[in-house]
Amino acid sequence: MKVNGKSYLSVWRENQCVKIVDQTQLPHQFQISKLSTLLEIAEAISQMQVRGAPLIGVTAAYGLAISMSQKPTRKNLFASINLLSNTRPTAVNLKWALTRMKTKLESVKNSELEEIAWQEADQIAKEDIGQNINIGKHGLKIIKDIAQKKERVQILTHCNAGWLATVDYGTALAPIYLAHEAGINLHVWVDETRPRNQGHLTAWELTNHGVPATLIADNAGGHLMQMDKVDLVLVGADRVSARGDVCNKIGTYLKALSAKDNQVPFYAAVPTPTIDWTITNPAKQIPIEER
Amino acid sequence: MKVNGKSYLSVWRENQCVKIVDQTQLPHQFQISKLSTLLEIAEAISQMQVRGAPLIGVTAAYGLAISMSQKPTRKNLFASINLLSNTRPTAVNLKWALTRMKTKLESVKNSELEEIAWQEADQIAKEDIGQNINIGKHGLKIIKDIAQKKERVQILTHCNAGWLATVDYGTALAPIYLAHEAGINLHVWVDETRPRNQGHLTAWELTNHGVPATLIADNAGGHLMQMDKVDLVLVGADRVSARGDVCNKIGTYLKALSAKDNQVPFYAAVPTPTIDWTITNPAKQIPIEER
Repeated sequence: MKVNGKSYLSVWRENQCVKIVDQTQLPHQFQISKLSTLLEIAEAISQMQVRGAPLIGVTAAYGLAISMSQKPTRKNLFASINLLSNTRPTAVNLKWALTRMKTKLESVKNSELEEIAWQEADQIAKEDIGQNINIGKHGLKIIKDIAQKKERVQILTHCNAGWLATVDYGTALAPIYLAHEAGINLHVWVDETRPRNQGHLTAWELTNHGVPATLIADNAGGHLMQMDKVDLVLVGADRVSARGDVCNKIGTYLKALSAKDNQVPFYAAVPTPTIDWTITNPAKQIPIEER
Repeated sequence: MKVNGKSYLSVWRENQCVKIVDQTQLPHQFQISKLSTLLEIAEAISQMQVRGAPLIGVTAAYGLAISMSQKPTRKNLFASINLLSNTRPTAVNLKWALTRMKTKLESVKNSELEEIAWQEADQIAKEDIGQNINIGKHGLKIIKDIAQKKERVQILTHCNAGWLATVDYGTALAPIYLAHEAGINLHVWVDETRPRNQGHLTAWELTNHGVPATLIADNAGGHLMQMDKVDLVLVGADRVSARGDVCNKIGTYLKALSAKDNQVPFYAAVPTPTIDWTITNPAKQIPIEER
């Protein structure tokens, strides 16, 4: 998506390195960082320079590729997977991406480890963009339907599930970007999302791309729904159980209750890697420190 | 209630002046300000040096008394009431206190205006404390019932409805102070209450008085209820309609929905002056700018 009129991805490969938008500097500073070692990748994830479930998965995959380019052995592969899998607790995509890389690489000859690692990481990044565009197309239908009844479609979102949380487009924001491209008159209410204020990232990316957005206190969403100023709620998810339970940023539940109370449609926009098929009842199965 | 081991009120009279705790300086600095003119009182209300519906009412009554001590005429009485009634929009107690002062003073001889104004303002302040103690006693019963089943009673509150919002004890916090005095093991979850962060005042007054309290993001309350970590929600109110609708700080509604969804008892602790008998359907009757 666009920043100062130029298109960017949140992570991209440059030869044997990876470049990222350093999200700890946003919205104050738009800074690109170059990561060239496994430890730099691990640090970028744990320090939230990259964040958002899908982006974490892709970045970890690139981290493995960097590691394989520096020491292409099976022992180093498993050690690197182990190190990366402990960088963030909640995002199921992290484990999903590492498991996929492991499955692909564990029976590959050492001499081919590097090349296949880069190929697979590139493939995961490419699929992420494709998935998000597909989420966008599904969501676009819903927004178009509302636009037939309303002069301006007002959407509320919580946290950041935009292009900064993925490789491009985002999950919850993908339908919004496609609707904006389709010329639909939109306005987005952005929860500031305390305590980490990820809403500032969302407001930053939407306004930089030209989508009208207003940053609001997390407390305000219920009242806005009562006043008929929200036509749709779109959020992402950290993890979705096999049963369909959505685990997302703290506070999402309060907005879901309010949407139900005011008959406002509420959608979690989720790519398949976010579904954790091993969990059927999250209250019983997710350890408390991972919630 | 206590600050550094010494008891304070949020507003008190000293001869022809009034002293207040300047709440714009809290929680960083505990500063007492002396107000000696009508304009200083009006400024203190509009700048939120005093805040909280009951305290605003009492301070305005003292403002009228100050004004009567400086120019005891009926013309000045009405002009002063007019000026004070526009200092804050939402607190019904402001208009209630001014109407009560007007009723008491409008047929009084000029020579007696000052004395009766001070008497009536003192009386309003005294009644406020009495009302809060009564609220406290009602609430104490509820807390005691919970304490029979739980080792520690966990209470969630939103905004500041403590002694800083009244003359003493508070509305929502009065039951908590009385339960603390009764030796009940308590812990209070304090919503930070964005965007103005009044939760910092609540955490400040509770911890200064010795009540264990934790300041939390507004987003966290629903999750805490889901985890069975909230036994009771206590909030104040800006205004209550004749029908019983509670109008309180933005975000209260979200906590009410969550309390309902988790079967957590939810009470608004309200003195009678907060009830606006002229409003039967708030959605239709309160002008939008007053909401």
